[in-house]
Amino acid sequence: MVNKFMLAALKQANMAYEHNEVPVGAVITFKDEIIAEAYNLCESQKDATRHAEIIAIQNACRKLGQQRLEACDLYVTLEPCAMCAGAIINARIKSLYFGAFDIKAGAAGSVLDLFNAKEYVFNHRVTVYAGIMEASCAEVLRVFFKTLR
Amino acid sequence: MVNKFMLAALKQANMAYEHNEVPVGAVITFKDEIIAEAYNLCESQKDATRHAEIIAIQNACRKLGQQRLEACDLYVTLEPCAMCAGAIINARIKSLYFGAFDIKAGAAGSVLDLFNAKEYVFNHRVTVYAGIMEASCAEVLRVFFKTLR
Repeated sequence: MVNKFMLAALKQANMAYEHNEVPVGAVITFKDEIIAEAYNLCESQKDATRHAEIIAIQNACRKLGQQRLEACDLYVTLEPCAMCAGAIINARIKSLYFGAFDIKAGAAGSVLDLFNAKEYVFNHRVTVYAGIMEASCAEVLRVFFKTLR
Repeated sequence: MVNKFMLAALKQANMAYEHNEVPVGAVITFKDEIIAEAYNLCESQKDATRHAEIIAIQNACRKLGQQRLEACDLYVTLEPCAMCAGAIINARIKSLYFGAFDIKAGAAGSVLDLFNAKEYVFNHRVTVYAGIMEASCAEVLRVFFKTLR
C-alpha cells in the first residue's frame, strides 16, 4: 500500500520533470484512497509557495471541505522543507511518508526536524516514515539537476 | 514608514476580524510601495495553508512575475508560524517586520527560530524586526478570542 502510494507520488514527480519543474510529487490519501495529487509548480507559476505538498494539502482541504486532515496521510518524493513541514503540521496530517532525503533544506531530520522539535508543542504529532522508495525518488531529481548543467 | 506599513497590515487584520477569521494581516512592499495585501482566510476557505503571509507572498510573486522576492519586505501583525517562516525564507524576503508574539506557534523566536537556525544554511538571510506596534496587533487578536468564548 505504502509503495503503491509512493509510486503515485513518483508519477507526479515525473510530470513535474516533463514540465521542467524540480521533480517532486505528492499525494494525499484518506481511507486508503488517493484524494489529492500534485507536483511542484514553482517555476511555471513563478511562485515560491507552490511546492507539491502545499498544493496537495490545498486540494485535499477543498475535497474534504475542512482545514484539518487528521485522517489523511501524505506521501511525497522528497523530504519536506520547513514551509511544507509547517503546513503538514498546521493541517494535522496523520502520517508523512517521504522518499529522498534533502540534505540542503530537509526539515524532517536532515537539516532540522520540525516534527520532533521538543519546543514545538502541538496537540497533534505527525508520524514520519523516511526513505520510502528512496532510490527511485532521488534518481529523478539527480537526472533533472544533471540535465540542467 | 515601518509604522505606516504595519498599520496597513493591521487594516488587513481588521478585515479578517470582520470575516470571522483569526485576525492576522500582512502586506508586502517593494521600493517602499505596497504590492500585496492579504488576511487570513483559513476558515472561509477551509484550508490550513491560507495564512495571511502565504497569500501575500503568492500575490507579490504574481505581481512581480518572479519566485524570488529579494527586494521585498513583509509586514505581518503576528509572528509567523513554521509554515510561513519557511515560505518567507523560500521566497527570499529581505526583511520581516512582525507585531505580536505568538507564544504557541511562533517560529521567529517564540517557540523556535527558523531565521536563526544555525543548521538551516541558506545563501539568503532574512532580517527580522519583532514587536512592531505590538500592542495594537495583539489587541485585535485578544478581542477576537475573547468574543469566541
